[in-house]
Amino acid sequence: MTKETDRDAGASATPPSAQAAPAAPAAPALDPVAELARLRSSIDNIDAALVHMLAERFRCTQAVGKLKAEHAMPASDPGREKDQIARLRELAASANLDPEFAEKWFNFVVSEVIRHHRQIADAGSENADGESD
Amino acid sequence: MTKETDRDAGASATPPSAQAAPAAPAAPALDPVAELARLRSSIDNIDAALVHMLAERFRCTQAVGKLKAEHAMPASDPGREKDQIARLRELAASANLDPEFAEKWFNFVVSEVIRHHRQIADAGSENADGESD
Repeated sequence: MTKETDRDAGASATPPSAQAAPAAPAAPALDPVAELARLRSSIDNIDAALVHMLAERFRCTQAVGKLKAEHAMPASDPGREKDQIARLRELAASANLDPEFAEKWFNFVVSEVIRHHRQIADAGSENADGESD
Repeated sequence: MTKETDRDAGASATPPSAQAAPAAPAAPALDPVAELARLRSSIDNIDAALVHMLAERFRCTQAVGKLKAEHAMPASDPGREKDQIARLRELAASANLDPEFAEKWFNFVVSEVIRHHRQIADAGSENADGESD
């Protein structure tokens, strides 16, 4: 009664081959539509995590901008940025992500952070003009 | 002996003001350099998480590209992309992240995924030409 439970039901409906060679057991047929839906669910979960991490990163960079403005600390720090890129490239490589992609992604996020800070400054605040953290 | 423990040592060194008005207790002086280091540590942790989530997202989109190529499914799906953007804008708003920023960020990641898939295709694979998942 239970001998079929670890075999694919669809496969068991196939008539036995004329010469039953000791072939490897057939992999269960993949339903590509279901598999696509499964992968998309994972992508959606990951994107939700990414958006929330980006929101938290933004909170931190805003706090850095405020701190620097209040204490007259220099807004930009090229050494810090160089270190960040080197570290992210290394992390990307270890995670099998193209380091070029990681660097471009970082530069995109930083440029958006700077753009956002400038918008705030233009809107009337005396806040940072190029905070890149 | 312990009456000073919740006060800032630096503040207690200040001579009492000439006319001791009932001022609100002074907030302990913040060390801006230490505070900057603390915020940067958080940013570095968040960036490491972001890079690893991006690596996992990339694994999923590569699997989607492979699946679609193997099953002759259409590479692009404008409806899917529209849904993704609407959802991410909503998530961003709930996390107090500028929805415009979230959408630009998503478009950047998707365009990089497509560019990467094209590079793979140009390198000899018959793989997807515009997979945007």
